[in-house]
Amino acid sequence: MPNPIPSQNPSFGDMDPEAFRAYGKQVIDWIADYLSQPDKYPVLSRAKPGEVKAQLPAAPPAAPEAMGAILADFDRIIMPGITHWNHPGFFAYFAISGSMPGILAETLIAALNVNAMLWRTSPSATELEEVVLDWLRQMVGLPDAFEGVIADTASMAAVLAIAAAREALGLGIREQGMAGRPEVPRLRMYCSEQAHSSIEKAAILVGLGQAGVRKIPVDAEFRMRPEALAEAIQADRREGWLPFCVAATVGTTSTTSIDPVPAIAEICEREKLWLHVDGAYGGSAAIVPELRHVLAGCDRADSIVINPHKWLFTPIDFSAFYIRRPDVLKQAFSLIPEYLRTAEGDAGTVKNYMEYGVQLGRRFRARKFWMIVRTFGAEGMAARIREHVRLAGEFAGWVDASPDFERLAPTPLSTVCFRARPAQSAGADLDRLNESLMEAVNATGKVFLSHTKLNGVYTLRLAIGNIRTAEAHVAEAWGLLQENLERLTRYN
Amino acid sequence: MPNPIPSQNPSFGDMDPEAFRAYGKQVIDWIADYLSQPDKYPVLSRAKPGEVKAQLPAAPPAAPEAMGAILADFDRIIMPGITHWNHPGFFAYFAISGSMPGILAETLIAALNVNAMLWRTSPSATELEEVVLDWLRQMVGLPDAFEGVIADTASMAAVLAIAAAREALGLGIREQGMAGRPEVPRLRMYCSEQAHSSIEKAAILVGLGQAGVRKIPVDAEFRMRPEALAEAIQADRREGWLPFCVAATVGTTSTTSIDPVPAIAEICEREKLWLHVDGAYGGSAAIVPELRHVLAGCDRADSIVINPHKWLFTPIDFSAFYIRRPDVLKQAFSLIPEYLRTAEGDAGTVKNYMEYGVQLGRRFRARKFWMIVRTFGAEGMAARIREHVRLAGEFAGWVDASPDFERLAPTPLSTVCFRARPAQSAGADLDRLNESLMEAVNATGKVFLSHTKLNGVYTLRLAIGNIRTAEAHVAEAWGLLQENLERLTRYN
Repeated sequence: MPNPIPSQNPSFGDMDPEAFRAYGKQVIDWIADYLSQPDKYPVLSRAKPGEVKAQLPAAPPAAPEAMGAILADFDRIIMPGITHWNHPGFFAYFAISGSMPGILAETLIAALNVNAMLWRTSPSATELEEVVLDWLRQMVGLPDAFEGVIADTASMAAVLAIAAAREALGLGIREQGMAGRPEVPRLRMYCSEQAHSSIEKAAILVGLGQAGVRKIPVDAEFRMRPEALAEAIQADRREGWLPFCVAATVGTTSTTSIDPVPAIAEICEREKLWLHVDGAYGGSAAIVPELRHVLAGCDRADSIVINPHKWLFTPIDFSAFYIRRPDVLKQAFSLIPEYLRTAEGDAGTVKNYMEYGVQLGRRFRARKFWMIVRTFGAEGMAARIREHVRLAGEFAGWVDASPDFERLAPTPLSTVCFRARPAQSAGADLDRLNESLMEAVNATGKVFLSHTKLNGVYTLRLAIGNIRTAEAHVAEAWGLLQENLERLTRYN
Repeated sequence: MPNPIPSQNPSFGDMDPEAFRAYGKQVIDWIADYLSQPDKYPVLSRAKPGEVKAQLPAAPPAAPEAMGAILADFDRIIMPGITHWNHPGFFAYFAISGSMPGILAETLIAALNVNAMLWRTSPSATELEEVVLDWLRQMVGLPDAFEGVIADTASMAAVLAIAAAREALGLGIREQGMAGRPEVPRLRMYCSEQAHSSIEKAAILVGLGQAGVRKIPVDAEFRMRPEALAEAIQADRREGWLPFCVAATVGTTSTTSIDPVPAIAEICEREKLWLHVDGAYGGSAAIVPELRHVLAGCDRADSIVINPHKWLFTPIDFSAFYIRRPDVLKQAFSLIPEYLRTAEGDAGTVKNYMEYGVQLGRRFRARKFWMIVRTFGAEGMAARIREHVRLAGEFAGWVDASPDFERLAPTPLSTVCFRARPAQSAGADLDRLNESLMEAVNATGKVFLSHTKLNGVYTLRLAIGNIRTAEAHVAEAWGLLQENLERLTRYN
């Protein structure tokens, strides 16, 4: 029988577990203090370009350094260059939160450090992934015909969707590729002109090119116009394109507009196109019973992505990709070299998630969602999202009631698009004024807003999604906007 | 001025920070205990398919549950389904370790939860990424012409490399795509028949198809044969293919063979092909001065990937992708929608990493490597890798000296390929015997080996890379192999 294992040469091992225990508790204390008061930091970092880098050694240390010194440098050098996504005044892009149960989960994920590529490389990772994806599917009310796989980001989920749609064409693209084959015509997919840039990036990646993405015009509320989609498909067919996929969006990035998925699904069914729904942000709202309508028609989609790391309090990254025909995804991506063959995989008694995506290395992300849903409860998560939508409605009401501001888009979810338009602004350059206003409020360190352009007009966005954002923070943002607008126009 | 912010409705916020503090410390204690003795668990999980899932509720909880209950379920339900990558007897695939400083870093990464997509969304994340990638570049001795970007996995790095190579062709593929264009011939790339499956998967993804990857035969030591590569390129040109990229491997998955990169680089320069080097595993060895030769010729590559999450003690995921012409990568992938435009990005004074890859959502991974290199020191990391290589050499020696075992490949790094071939085995089915032997030793719970096939022969692999693996563990594996072989052959 094997000998008892003596302790190894300490110069070769990991950190001493007792040192880890002590520093780990320091780290936990630091985080508890930090998250009790993230608003003691300016939300948008005030670091100048190169300022952080200038304080870091250009060469790696040859010898070990003390953990105390590393953590001190974290406070001294790294923290001033952090933009605080945890700050309740973070209203830019889409506000996200990696909630505390998610942080505990990430700690345990890193400690276990399993690769969820094969079932056998940790059965719990694979089976928990199946379970929590099904929990989320139930929470948003999608039919059980959808099977899920965790992708890192919605960008990659778009890649998976388009690659699956391409595979479903039956043109042998997996085997023979796309170029130099007279039997493969130019492929075209469709999304609205308000779709996220990741759709176009995915199309570039899989070889469609930018020309392979036709952007369909939107209506006055920034939603894809289905009749324009239908016409585009017809026109493209006449010109020799092969239409194969539509990406509809539930919650576009600029305005959170919701494409009319039922009408789009109708067209996709008639034309036999793959329907992917990008619900990265907006899909989460469907966990609120009275907002479930945002996913109307999505039961007819071929694939859909919802990002728990956006609006379901999950630390990045975690993107839930659902597909009605997982066999097509597997057909597109499964490659099993001998060194990854297993008896249970050959027997088909387990799911090996590596067969359903691009990356072989897969973190045990399922753990996060499991701990978060259990900590808050599905109803608790819905209550938080409901509150965010209510807060956005309040802010939109203030904008609408003000003589100096105007709303530039409907507010179906928790993001308000607006701009300053002071009563006495005739002739003023409103784009420049609003850019200055955004810079001014962001410079206070109390709020961070970002912008977009709608119909060519510079538009401010206030996106509510942080778990710590309460009415007072939204009111503070409104106060800062009014106050800074007054200051800016007074000296104009 | 804004009002002081009252504390928000507690039913809407995050977990209570004091509860987080208490449970966080429990989690740290759990991890310290676990990592003091990961070998008290069986390394390969003994869970049966479906066993974990059967213990989990099929529907999400509506109401909040106590963190104590969640952590208890973790121990009771999840842990039995974990395969312990931390176990010093983990010798399967490539053994990895998420070292303790890496775990502390992941905890802080989750707590900050920044998205490193734009410089302004956390200047420290972008600038630390630049710094630590340059540290690693120096550690492995690559020239400073290489610029880095962190990818999640080597699978994605292969995608980036091939997409950049495709873009460098100047065929307008980003704009016009690959299909239905007579001016775009069939594209072909090359790798050895021992290359990782992720190369082929990446090729499928970007539209080359499996036919677009020509696998070059290897020599007796499983290294790409450069003269066969040169001939293949010539033959393909004659047949109308457009050769454009070669993926060489430094440390193949089956045997860790090292392709002759200098000769391959010569061919690529002559033929004007993009040279990508997959050094996901083997590249790390170059931090050991006397092993630096593994990257010989890689200074002439166009791109190279090295995975700190494989052999540099970094929790997954973290893949360092280096490219000599980052402008080409940017040209392939940069898309800047209005909502992601920033003044500093427009001015070109900062790097916005989202322009250099597929995913917009990017974790603050740089922090991990920063803490790990500082904790161990570059020389300390090299000492650990040197020891792993020494241990593999020891094991290889035992195999070579045994009448009952034989080595099936050279051992240039820390992975030994071998099989049992008992002296009295004439006529025995050696493939079946070795499969049974692997199952038998894996069933002990003390070691986990995986297999491959070399020249059609079932081959056992013992891969050393875990930070906790010491000579005694390797000796234990050898003891178990001998003992189980004797048992298996005795009753044959």
